[in-house]
Amino acid sequence: MISWKIEEVGFDSRNIASNGNKFLTGNGYMGVRGTLEEFTKENLVAVNLAGIYDRVGQGWREPLNAPNGLFTTLRIDEEEFSILKIQPYFHRCSLDYRKALFSRNTVWKTKRGQVEIESERFVSLDEPHLIVMKYSITANFHADIELITGIDGDVWDIHGPHYDYLSLSIKNNDLIAVGTTHENKDKVYVVETCKCDFVNETNYSVDDKRVLRHVSFITDPGTKYTLTKWISVFTSRDDTGCRDESEAVRLVEDCSMKGYDHCRNAHIKKWEEKWSVSEVIIEGDDAAMEALNYSLYHLHSIAPRHARSMSIAARGLSGQTYKGAVFWDTEMFMLDFFIFTEPEVAKTLLRYRIDTLGGAMAKAKHYGYDGAFYAWESQEGGYDACSDYNVTDVFTGRPMRTYFKDKQVHISSAIVYGIMKYIDITGDESLLWENGAQGWKTIIECARFYYSLLLKKLDSDYYEIHDVVGPDEYHERVNNNGYTNRMAKYTFDTAIRVIDLIDRIQDDLAQKIRSEYPVEQLREKFSDASAHIFIPRPGKDGVIQQFDGYYDLEDATPSILKGRLLHEKEYWGGAYGVASNTRVIKQADVVTWLAMFPKDFPVETMLANWNYYEPRTEHGSSLSACMYALLACRCGYPDLAYPFFLKSATVDLIGGGKQWAGLVYIGGTHPAAQGGAYMTAVRGFGGLDFEDGKIKIKPRLPKSWRSLRFKIWHRGRLYLIEETGESAKITPVG
Amino acid sequence: MISWKIEEVGFDSRNIASNGNKFLTGNGYMGVRGTLEEFTKENLVAVNLAGIYDRVGQGWREPLNAPNGLFTTLRIDEEEFSILKIQPYFHRCSLDYRKALFSRNTVWKTKRGQVEIESERFVSLDEPHLIVMKYSITANFHADIELITGIDGDVWDIHGPHYDYLSLSIKNNDLIAVGTTHENKDKVYVVETCKCDFVNETNYSVDDKRVLRHVSFITDPGTKYTLTKWISVFTSRDDTGCRDESEAVRLVEDCSMKGYDHCRNAHIKKWEEKWSVSEVIIEGDDAAMEALNYSLYHLHSIAPRHARSMSIAARGLSGQTYKGAVFWDTEMFMLDFFIFTEPEVAKTLLRYRIDTLGGAMAKAKHYGYDGAFYAWESQEGGYDACSDYNVTDVFTGRPMRTYFKDKQVHISSAIVYGIMKYIDITGDESLLWENGAQGWKTIIECARFYYSLLLKKLDSDYYEIHDVVGPDEYHERVNNNGYTNRMAKYTFDTAIRVIDLIDRIQDDLAQKIRSEYPVEQLREKFSDASAHIFIPRPGKDGVIQQFDGYYDLEDATPSILKGRLLHEKEYWGGAYGVASNTRVIKQADVVTWLAMFPKDFPVETMLANWNYYEPRTEHGSSLSACMYALLACRCGYPDLAYPFFLKSATVDLIGGGKQWAGLVYIGGTHPAAQGGAYMTAVRGFGGLDFEDGKIKIKPRLPKSWRSLRFKIWHRGRLYLIEETGESAKITPVG
Repeated sequence: MISWKIEEVGFDSRNIASNGNKFLTGNGYMGVRGTLEEFTKENLVAVNLAGIYDRVGQGWREPLNAPNGLFTTLRIDEEEFSILKIQPYFHRCSLDYRKALFSRNTVWKTKRGQVEIESERFVSLDEPHLIVMKYSITANFHADIELITGIDGDVWDIHGPHYDYLSLSIKNNDLIAVGTTHENKDKVYVVETCKCDFVNETNYSVDDKRVLRHVSFITDPGTKYTLTKWISVFTSRDDTGCRDESEAVRLVEDCSMKGYDHCRNAHIKKWEEKWSVSEVIIEGDDAAMEALNYSLYHLHSIAPRHARSMSIAARGLSGQTYKGAVFWDTEMFMLDFFIFTEPEVAKTLLRYRIDTLGGAMAKAKHYGYDGAFYAWESQEGGYDACSDYNVTDVFTGRPMRTYFKDKQVHISSAIVYGIMKYIDITGDESLLWENGAQGWKTIIECARFYYSLLLKKLDSDYYEIHDVVGPDEYHERVNNNGYTNRMAKYTFDTAIRVIDLIDRIQDDLAQKIRSEYPVEQLREKFSDASAHIFIPRPGKDGVIQQFDGYYDLEDATPSILKGRLLHEKEYWGGAYGVASNTRVIKQADVVTWLAMFPKDFPVETMLANWNYYEPRTEHGSSLSACMYALLACRCGYPDLAYPFFLKSATVDLIGGGKQWAGLVYIGGTHPAAQGGAYMTAVRGFGGLDFEDGKIKIKPRLPKSWRSLRFKIWHRGRLYLIEETGESAKITPVG
Repeated sequence: MISWKIEEVGFDSRNIASNGNKFLTGNGYMGVRGTLEEFTKENLVAVNLAGIYDRVGQGWREPLNAPNGLFTTLRIDEEEFSILKIQPYFHRCSLDYRKALFSRNTVWKTKRGQVEIESERFVSLDEPHLIVMKYSITANFHADIELITGIDGDVWDIHGPHYDYLSLSIKNNDLIAVGTTHENKDKVYVVETCKCDFVNETNYSVDDKRVLRHVSFITDPGTKYTLTKWISVFTSRDDTGCRDESEAVRLVEDCSMKGYDHCRNAHIKKWEEKWSVSEVIIEGDDAAMEALNYSLYHLHSIAPRHARSMSIAARGLSGQTYKGAVFWDTEMFMLDFFIFTEPEVAKTLLRYRIDTLGGAMAKAKHYGYDGAFYAWESQEGGYDACSDYNVTDVFTGRPMRTYFKDKQVHISSAIVYGIMKYIDITGDESLLWENGAQGWKTIIECARFYYSLLLKKLDSDYYEIHDVVGPDEYHERVNNNGYTNRMAKYTFDTAIRVIDLIDRIQDDLAQKIRSEYPVEQLREKFSDASAHIFIPRPGKDGVIQQFDGYYDLEDATPSILKGRLLHEKEYWGGAYGVASNTRVIKQADVVTWLAMFPKDFPVETMLANWNYYEPRTEHGSSLSACMYALLACRCGYPDLAYPFFLKSATVDLIGGGKQWAGLVYIGGTHPAAQGGAYMTAVRGFGGLDFEDGKIKIKPRLPKSWRSLRFKIWHRGRLYLIEETGESAKITPVG
């Protein structure tokens, strides 16, 4: 079995950024980067908040980091001991990702003896607004200790500062920080309280960025001195609409009364509940099992359970990169995990899209289209945070015009795909018809969007979609991207399906819909569109051309292109990137189509495309490997899939992935790759599928996997799936 | 009156390149750059040949330079006297552009005394294959002279060397160079013969690049010693299909028998004939008259009178820049001059397009379109020499993907516009129906091309053209460029006109056409297309948006953008150029539309567009100023037009114009600007127009112009137009 623990022994400052992601703890409401207590913004400390954004000047709009209530540093015999300044004798940090506990252990040798600190912290899964930390000191001499701990309001921002005002105060034993944001005057409340299990002298200090307590005492050799901190975080954007710090104060006072262990147990219990459904057990391959469950740990840590309608950012809660925005990653890569293990979260994610239909319709209108054109980088209300200049030219330092926002039209189909997947697997149609969230409308408006994109040459009888960017972002403004056209067709078909469903629902809603929309006319239009939209066919070799003219480009490989780079950080795409005029693609494109629609073509065709495109794929996106893995499984080649699966599952464990796009830092966790790894495990290797409302299993386990066990929710019931070799068992649970 | 002479006194090596253009002499068959006799390829010497091209390796295909039969240098007392090595005491070169005579006068002081050389040369307008030069030496002491003169086969090439073999020989007194090109094994024959009016000792030398004679003598003080050279140039591509050097030998021997003065007189007589029709007389403004007639001199010098079907390169016969290719410049900018002053030349130019229909149809097919998509940079047979990578990135040294070739679809309409303009003004329809050249077919195929470009959105009832580059090349891949769509509509209308004409022509041809084309069906299609093609309308402010989304771009000015340049030679266009995402345009675009179709809108609309676009125009193309000048005249503002007219007329006189596009040298003469200056003079200031087959004049002379006089051919008759103030007189001549 696996250890459920990752750790790093020794301290190397070069790992600070990647460890911040690797050792992340979170609960969907917030994410706390895996940094150390004495770190400050220079070391990328962040308490990253979900779903609350701010923009300053012409900078990118990005999510907020809350003031850091964990800040703690140490003076021994009047000298500051920070791991950044004084090399430790021993250092280890670790993450128990079964229990979601981060711990740290550091020993320094001083002139007079040895001092050890130990800390443990968690972002409570039981209480979304709560962070708790225990911090202990042991010395083998009479050390003169000053513990400095409190709230550091000097937060890390990429495009900040976001707090126009930061009010810092001390009330009773509580430290209080209230930040007011620039754009919307949102409030962020952080309250910290503290208990010491030892006698000490406590003083307080406040400057314009920090409110701190100074805890002074002298150690007895061998005695452990423990300080415990409870930190609460609330914002005025919470579903409950927090208006002042009183709730935050109440929470820390209440929890500190209950004590550390109580809070810790409640937290662990919630995690055990998650694992009891979501753990994937792989016999025979601990490395895979560890990487996969570590990925699931991350997905759990960022699931927005506290909200009714919220989604997940492309870099989770690991910071402000990618603007904290929601991409197609959620629907196409993460959704399976939540549908199968926690369908309510899946519903929350999708409700976010349905609720932001207004933003999508405004975007479509802005570009002169009908219907709903979802944000490429979605923030509150569906606001598209994507810039027209998303990449910086390394040679000139100038922003480069990119087309992610205005041409990556496949985004709307991902929403439709996600909603219907949820409905088909859960059997829960309420997303379509519930009050407020009108999924039917989302789907029809997405279809109307694609309909307005269709172009007909006068002498042709099919419809085309021109000037798009497909999943492979290195080729901009292409015509008839196969993936995009196929997804558009799927959207038309789904809209027809939804129109058909209207007859079956309650009369008053059906009547309302009919009064608002000419549904019969739309059905006719969408049928015509679905029948005539151009879908590229495989050639004689079985390969589907990614877009019109792709075969006219220079044939090359990623390694050839690497040799052409003049600057290690230069952007491969855009108009003049090394990949732009070659067949080298950033990520799975045709392969994504085939992985999403495995019934479109026979296995030989899927395999031909896999074989053609894989050597031409840079895998420059963390979304790429899992699609190749999934398709290889569907072609019956799990061992071909395996390294791609592992790449996807270990992306944050290893800390790989691209850190730069041009000169823009894009580091952080990769929930889409984590979700993709899960999708590969259960749908690919596990061969999980559905037919006529029933679970279907076709095991395709890699050689080393003796067995695979996982549970899934399906139509309101939990099932245990057990697979060994080619046999499979499906057992209802409870 | 004007001097008809330009000259430069003193020698400045920095002017070598621009003087090569400024003092160019030519006769349509070939152009001899205005360089000095002792110059070699390092100084951009060229005998540039019309209509014969070669390509070596992956370099650009470009026109040939012939071996230089003018090469002459001088040793005085055993020291070489080249202006490049020994600074002269006096130096002047001049061009009599009335007589098309280039002359040079240089005085050196040596240790022993003073030596003067005088030379005069011309490229015969009487005999297309002939160049003649007289070279004289006078010393005021007994100078020991060695004149070295012959053929320099070490020619200047941009993408050469083009001669795989160069055979050099001496036969009797004749020097013979025969080059064989790389690609097509074309032959170029250069024969030089020479006469001296003094006793000398002549020796010969041949190495692998040059064949030379060494003429030695000792001067009597004050005596002038004159050597005369006759040089003939023939190629295997000539209409007569020259097969060996015998014709070239015959020509120089024949002409040398007749003597220098005879050849010179015949040449001048031919020029006088040209001027007797084409001279434009402006009373009150010598500067304008000089600049304009100097421009006409250049147009005369490059008119392909020796061929039945040939056009003019964008840089005339000034060298290999722009690949010696034919652009829309000919039809849209130069054609008026030839139609009005030498209609047979206009016909030759248009026949070239009609004869290269095959190339245009192949190009359309290559890109998946119907009909005829003319070459953006047309060489023999309509071969498109335009590269997909026409500009080099100054920051990376990499080629930049440009879209001139595949997206500048307005080119085909320029051909149609040219043909119909010729027909309407000359009344000569033979270009439509004559054997071989089938103008009717060209026009129908161009219309079929545009028809196949039309795109219809399903819910819209108009047709659009997407993804083009308009005249303003700084904005690539735009939708519904107004100029392009308007020209497409014109093409549909013209094709309908031609189809209507088919009924009127002789039965057998009409029958043949009908059997080849479903003309009635095409008429219907083109009518539908013309009726429904989207033509942008002026907004409330009268301004027409250049293309979809133009107004969304940053508003800026050329001077603002200049301030943003990081490199003086960086390209303003492309994906990331300083102009690309702003409203700054390279050249007249909407303004070209309005100048070509002055009846489309009232004067206020034309003026509104002039006022809007001019401050946003870089005039980065020599094709820009004249369109602004022409439109300003049509708006009734000749004095607003005047500086633009002058800019156009003086472009080669001053030697301005862009010398670089990225890292690519693009220098040379600017016949389109010269033609544009003429167009502005007669159509703009002169107010020349036609209605119901009649000449119409509406003078709009600039303040300083007391009168304007010019002659034009119209429907087979020559007319003298005389304008003074607001009155005009039209008198048939002869």
